[in-house]
Amino acid sequence: MASGPDFEQIRQARERIAKHVYRTPILRSSSLDRAADAQLYFKCENFQKTGSFKIRGATNAIYSLGEEIARRGVVTHSSGNHGAAVAYAARGRGIPAWVVVPENAPGIKRRAIADFGAEIVTSKPTMESRESCARTILERTGATLIHPYDDDRIIAGQATATVELIEDAGELDYVFAPVSGGGLLSGTAIAAQSLQPGIRVVGCEPARADDAFRSIESGHLEKNATADTIADGLRASLSERTFAILRERLDRIILVEESEIVEAMRLVWERMKIIIEPSSAVPVAAAISGKLDLSGRRVGIVLSGGNVDLERCFSGF
Amino acid sequence: MASGPDFEQIRQARERIAKHVYRTPILRSSSLDRAADAQLYFKCENFQKTGSFKIRGATNAIYSLGEEIARRGVVTHSSGNHGAAVAYAARGRGIPAWVVVPENAPGIKRRAIADFGAEIVTSKPTMESRESCARTILERTGATLIHPYDDDRIIAGQATATVELIEDAGELDYVFAPVSGGGLLSGTAIAAQSLQPGIRVVGCEPARADDAFRSIESGHLEKNATADTIADGLRASLSERTFAILRERLDRIILVEESEIVEAMRLVWERMKIIIEPSSAVPVAAAISGKLDLSGRRVGIVLSGGNVDLERCFSGF
Repeated sequence: MASGPDFEQIRQARERIAKHVYRTPILRSSSLDRAADAQLYFKCENFQKTGSFKIRGATNAIYSLGEEIARRGVVTHSSGNHGAAVAYAARGRGIPAWVVVPENAPGIKRRAIADFGAEIVTSKPTMESRESCARTILERTGATLIHPYDDDRIIAGQATATVELIEDAGELDYVFAPVSGGGLLSGTAIAAQSLQPGIRVVGCEPARADDAFRSIESGHLEKNATADTIADGLRASLSERTFAILRERLDRIILVEESEIVEAMRLVWERMKIIIEPSSAVPVAAAISGKLDLSGRRVGIVLSGGNVDLERCFSGF
Repeated sequence: MASGPDFEQIRQARERIAKHVYRTPILRSSSLDRAADAQLYFKCENFQKTGSFKIRGATNAIYSLGEEIARRGVVTHSSGNHGAAVAYAARGRGIPAWVVVPENAPGIKRRAIADFGAEIVTSKPTMESRESCARTILERTGATLIHPYDDDRIIAGQATATVELIEDAGELDYVFAPVSGGGLLSGTAIAAQSLQPGIRVVGCEPARADDAFRSIESGHLEKNATADTIADGLRASLSERTFAILRERLDRIILVEESEIVEAMRLVWERMKIIIEPSSAVPVAAAISGKLDLSGRRVGIVLSGGNVDLERCFSGF
């Protein structure tokens, strides 16, 4: 019942993407350690190329394509960061990219995609509309779909962040990562448990987009009833593939409320002096929530991205 | 005509403060490199304990005091970061601290000082009022004045950031640092030129608080006519001591306008995903201003601090 990429595929992904992505630093913070009563190791994917971990999976998928197929280009639908990553990686490989972006995506993410030279196609903010827009382009162009998470090459790419985390931080008791479609969390779990079989992997999810939590509880793949969370990168639902991986590997999922997300985000900005987006604040909120006793534990936290619209911070200067 | 601490004093400072301060990382950014047409190495003192480089000098000065004298406590007047640093270092050594804070200092800096357990004394926002408040406390308590910059122990402490910068970044063509009272810039120049005699050290100053620029031009110690700059850490004026060091060692001073400071600050927040305060944006603004041709050069930039009131970013969530 094993599923998803194995560690050899993760190792290959790492080699394939090495010269295209940053090896991001691990930061620590005595303030955050106190808040969680633990030793926290933050993997700073907010500093990553394109501002999120998504470049790892997109680069692995796009550089895996054969020359012939790659030339016809790539298509994706994305809440933002994956779209930017596909655009950036496609430009790097010199092939065309079409990105379907829901009309309610933050302006900063939309601009980043356009800046990287991809063609933007606007859809309604439903998964159905996004998928049907993508299908239309695929049929017209013969391009390849680069799915945001339902793809072993994507999962293997995202997994490389956790390989680096454990290499740099040393042995950990827990790894916390956010869950949306489950690509990052699946890769995190496979990488962590390959390197350290006893490690516990915790998914962190907004209570307002809790499909993964309910899926694990019920044992069936559930859909999000709502997804109106500030964590705009965490509005997708698991696929059969990521659900199967997470069911097998996850220790548990911790849900956090909107107010906890904002508070954790502010704490990180103020104390660590780094900019993380709301989705990255979700595992931080989970770690300091007290919902899991972490006292004295060594906990890795994947800070998934840093793409925030800073207009409100700078307007009026 | 040599003046200020020598490299041996800097080496001692480094040993003295090593276990009390962070060795902050060097970050790089391809976006900022493009903006400056150079290879920039950012020394992230915004991640430092208390949120700025000031903890280096304050720790060196306070841990240099004899037991007898230390016990009576320390006093300082400060636009904020030095005050917080003195409060933090005094608490670390277990001695009392009084901090004179001008009434217009940002709330976040005032709170940090109080949180570190120092007693705050509010003065008018002039150097005269600050100094007279400090004198009154000194006379009453027998404490020791820890001046923000007019002190070789402070300068030697601040210099340690540049020692680390050059160790981590390798040989550099330039180092850029902000100038206010000149403690950081003096230490930067002495450290850099001790390690690499040919290196060029550039002071970066707001055009609205340009005493150092005018002092170097005229050859006499000038005072700030105005100091109404957003770079609230750069409102002080050089002392005879720092002026003598800078006259001898500085390549030049670059002045930047308020709009350039805000633009550089925003660029760093958006592209590097780190929070720097306006004073830290001054050398960034200078480096990307085109006022000095840096093409292909290796340039170290001291990001001096990250203490910004984030209220406007988070209000409304």
